[in-house]
Parts: sequence; C-alpha cells; structure tokens
Amino acid sequence: MGNPVVAEIRRGPLIESRHRGSIAVVDADGRIVHSVGDVGALVYPRSAVKAMQALVLVESGAVGRFALDDEALALACASHGGEPGHVAVAERMLAAAGLDASALECGIHWPSHAPSAQALARSGATASALHNNCSGKHSGFLCAACALGVEHRGYAKADHPVQRAVKAVLEDLTGIRIADEHRAVDGCSVPTWALPLSALARGFARFGTGKGLGPERAKAAQRLRAACAAKPWHVAGTGRFCTSVMQHFGERVFVKTGAEGVFCGAIPGAGLGVAIKVDDGAARASEVAMAGVIARFVPLDDGDRTALERLLRPTLRNWNGIEVGAIAPAP
Amino acid sequence: MGNPVVAEIRRGPLIESRHRGSIAVVDADGRIVHSVGDVGALVYPRSAVKAMQALVLVESGAVGRFALDDEALALACASHGGEPGHVAVAERMLAAAGLDASALECGIHWPSHAPSAQALARSGATASALHNNCSGKHSGFLCAACALGVEHRGYAKADHPVQRAVKAVLEDLTGIRIADEHRAVDGCSVPTWALPLSALARGFARFGTGKGLGPERAKAAQRLRAACAAKPWHVAGTGRFCTSVMQHFGERVFVKTGAEGVFCGAIPGAGLGVAIKVDDGAARASEVAMAGVIARFVPLDDGDRTALERLLRPTLRNWNGIEVGAIAPAP
Repeated sequence: MGNPVVAEIRRGPLIESRHRGSIAVVDADGRIVHSVGDVGALVYPRSAVKAMQALVLVESGAVGRFALDDEALALACASHGGEPGHVAVAERMLAAAGLDASALECGIHWPSHAPSAQALARSGATASALHNNCSGKHSGFLCAACALGVEHRGYAKADHPVQRAVKAVLEDLTGIRIADEHRAVDGCSVPTWALPLSALARGFARFGTGKGLGPERAKAAQRLRAACAAKPWHVAGTGRFCTSVMQHFGERVFVKTGAEGVFCGAIPGAGLGVAIKVDDGAARASEVAMAGVIARFVPLDDGDRTALERLLRPTLRNWNGIEVGAIAPAP
Repeated sequence: MGNPVVAEIRRGPLIESRHRGSIAVVDADGRIVHSVGDVGALVYPRSAVKAMQALVLVESGAVGRFALDDEALALACASHGGEPGHVAVAERMLAAAGLDASALECGIHWPSHAPSAQALARSGATASALHNNCSGKHSGFLCAACALGVEHRGYAKADHPVQRAVKAVLEDLTGIRIADEHRAVDGCSVPTWALPLSALARGFARFGTGKGLGPERAKAAQRLRAACAAKPWHVAGTGRFCTSVMQHFGERVFVKTGAEGVFCGAIPGAGLGVAIKVDDGAARASEVAMAGVIARFVPLDDGDRTALERLLRPTLRNWNGIEVGAIAPAP
C-alpha cells in the first residue's frame, strides 16, 4: 500500500514522475489537524531540526557572551549554499569563541550554490569546512561548548554534552523519549535520532508558539524564529525555497528543509507545526508539499497567493530555457 | 496501489527512504521474461535511448564520411560528465563535419563531473554547449544531418528529417506506432516520445541481438554496442555507473541511464532487453535496480560478482568518510 502521492512532475502531456510521502500538521498539544499517509512512522529529521538543535546554543548563554547577532543565529539554523556571505558569518562566529575553521567537525564539501563554487575555483582557492552547508550549525555547537565551559573537541559525538543537550531538547519539544537504538549518523557527522513524523510536527508547533515549553526555552525559540525571519538568506541562500518563504512571510511562517525529503515548519498564528517526509527523499517534492500546507493553513491575501504560486507549481525549464513541464502538489 | 518498492536507502538501523518503480525484461519477440510493477505504462525514455537515436547517425553514412571512431560513436550514445576528454571528442566530431560548438542546439550547462567543473572555472573559462551532457548526441545529429545532405539548423525540432528518422527508428525497434500527442521536450530540446516500458525493453532486446531488424540496422546496432564496450568512459565518465558496468562486462552488457529514473539496457547473450522506470525519478534507485537485473540475468563468475557488488549495494559515506548507510535493490 504505502503513502499516497504528494507531488507530481508533469512533462509535456503526461505525468512523468510521482512522489509519495506523509504530511503531519499538529498543534502544540499533539492534536493532529491534518494528516496524509503514515504520520506515526519513524523519520530521521536530519537538517530539518537545526533550529531545535540551535536552542542549545541560545540557552548556553553564547548569544550574549559571543555577541551573536541575527545573522549568526539564522546561520546556526541553516543548510546554507556556501555563498561568501554564509562563510563570513561562520568565520565570525568561530572567531568570537576564539576558534577557527580547524575546529569544525562537519567535513568539507564545495558550495552547493554553483556560482559560488565556480567563483571559489576561479579564485584558485579550494573548499573548506566553512563551505559545508552545516558550518553554521557546527559553529553554533562550538560556541555552545565554549559558553558551557566544556571541551569543544568531539562536540559532534553522541556522548558529548552538547549532543546530549540536543537530545534532551528534542525530547522536550516532541514529547518523545528517544530510544538510543534509533540513532544514525548525519551527513555532517552529528547524531540524527529517528522520531515519529507527528511528534516532529508537534515539536514545531511548540517551537512556533512556545506552548508547553519552559519560559527560557520559549524565549530562545522566539529569538531563533525572529532571527530567521530577519535574515532568511542566511538560513539557505540565493534562490532557495526556505529563504523565499521566509523573505515573503517573515515571522508568519518558519520553514526548514532536511536531507532525504524531510521538511519541517511552524505556522505560529495558527498554532501549528508541520512535518513532511517524502518517501523517496526528493527535495523538489517536499518543497511543493510544504507550499501546499502553507496555502492551506496560512491566511493569504492576493500578494501572498502570487508569491506562493511559483513555489507551489514551479515551472521546469530545460537548458535552453524552454518550458518543458512543472512540479505541483498532488491534486 | 502503485508500483512496488524497487530500492531502499538504509541509514543506521532504519530504512530512511524507499523508491518504487517498474522493471521490464523482455526478449526480441516481445515476450516478457520478468516484470515488476506496471510495465505497460507510458514512459519518456529521455537519454536512455541515445543509442537508438545514434542508429540514425550510423545509418546516415556519417561514420565513413567523417571518419567517426569508437570514441565518437560512444560519445554519440553518451550522457557524459563534461570531462575534458568528452569535450575534445565532441569538438572533433563537429570539426569533421565542418562545424563547431555554435551549431549545437542542446543549451549550455557546467560539467556534471565536479572536478572538471572546478578545473574549468579555475582556468578562467566558462561552460559551453560542448560541456552539456548531450553534446555527443547532438554532434551526432549534426553529423547525420550533414551526411544526409539536409540543412543542419533546426536539427533538434520534431519535424526535422533527423528527428523524423529517430522517431521511425524508435517505432521499428519497439514495435510501437508512436502517437504524436505523446511527445514532450527533453532537457537538451530534442523530442522525447513516451513509450510503454515493456516496448522499450523489447526495443533493447532487438538492439542487443539484431533480431527482428533489417540487416543494415542490425549491423549499425552491433557497431554502436561494440563502440560503447570499447570506450565505456565516453558513454558516461569517471566513477559513473554506465561506465563501470561496461568497463567490466564489455559487450556482455549494454546499459544506458536516462533522466527521471529511467534505465535501459541489453543482455545480448540472454537475448534480453531491459527497461526500468523509478516512479520518483531517482537515478540512485534505477542504478541498483539495473545492477539487480544484471545479477539475475547475466551468468556471473566470482570476478563478476565482486565487481557487481559495489554497484548493487553502494555504501553511503558522509563528508568525513564515515559509513552512514547503504543503497540496495528491494529484497
């Protein structure tokens, strides 16, 4: 049986490809407001919970101690494209804590933003850990370790105080006691713990509203949401979905993509959290599915609808710029 | 309902993602030897039929006239990575016909082979149509147009003699009269006509054996298979699946990937053609599914099994080289 189709790729007169998946829209009390497919299945949230991981940074006292601004906090929540502006903020965060790129344990990859990768190569330089899409999150982990006064080396390991704190935060927000055997290793080497999709959505309802959280944690969540809304380019980058959504909607919608077709978000005004998992891991499908959830649960005016349309039904163009098809949420 | 799972992505203790799809293994008479899912569904074959498209090139007389060697014929069948060696052969094909890169109508993109893209940027140059993964096919179309003595401009359009000849070849090999309303535009701007998956597989059984084809066409198919087996690097490139398979198996197995999770191939010794479509369009799934078909229908010795294993169950490593999971055909 499996999950229903959540997104379709049209080419010419036919549907060329189909993506199945599950969608959970849940309030802070755990009430499921909308669901598609099996929302009880365990999902590795991957980078979609970076904002939850960043709660540890804010609660560590690092924000005041290292004078972290909105750009730094947004970058701590980011899967960025490795554009020069992203790299500069990560460097700045590390320098504030007395560290540099050599402290990063995320590994190295070239900027995913192609023009930035080309410019980097053209300059004669090569990729560093600062270009890793997770360098902001990792810089945040390092700042947190320093603010907490613990050894920063090994901060990516599951038994390090920072990762133990992350696990406790995830348990608090989602209301789930995480089984240690549901742990895997993420692309950037930190743990990723599998959680039921509906619990992830509940966690983001709490993240978006503060309901059910202690006052310090609710304030930290508000601080991170405000930073992402103020600096959405730092959460992803040029032309990216998360950036486009938050550039338009500001604090009305928080969204964050994760690898393997995961997408999480919060719609604070409606008191809702959202979690999406595309079975096959495709980002193009999780994006239009998230746009579909926004279209359904965020009150929209004409300007909102216009801005959302190109995210909801992106046109596919080929290398000559000819329109060859479109992506859309399942009808 | 939909098609069954054909490939799974494991991370840590859990299956993180699943790909569904359909698989047809068919002989030259159209007898279905093995099928998974709906093999009657219409599929755009995309780049998986480049070798069929290249039959027009061979039959045009261009091989002798322009002294096209194995590298050129393999590149005409290729979705290449834009490595310098690929670009050089495309340039050579065009020059033989008295043309240059300005005649290519495929559009421009940077090499998909990342080190080649970086080297190109580092050199201060920029991408051209020669780097387009389809530049060999397009150079082949141009050589065919010149050999046929027709105007080469507009060769990518459906009503150009070269594309009309391609359509006739596809109809001959697959045994299907192609409905004109099943035409879409491919990434490189040539037509792609939707065909039933089982008919595509039958077409590749004929391509691989010559059975059911006229003698000139059977000889042309044999010429192309021999060229790809002799120069498999030119069909894809460094580290690529098609190249790895044909480097090991030579003329025993012909394989060619296409966009959106399509994979076609021929196993001449068994008299079989293969066509695979992953519902969601993922290449990682079509590759392991194709490896699974090879494991099942090609007689293997120990060396074959060892070579096939890393294609059948590729290990997933993160940016630090840590093994985080694996891809495998569905059990």
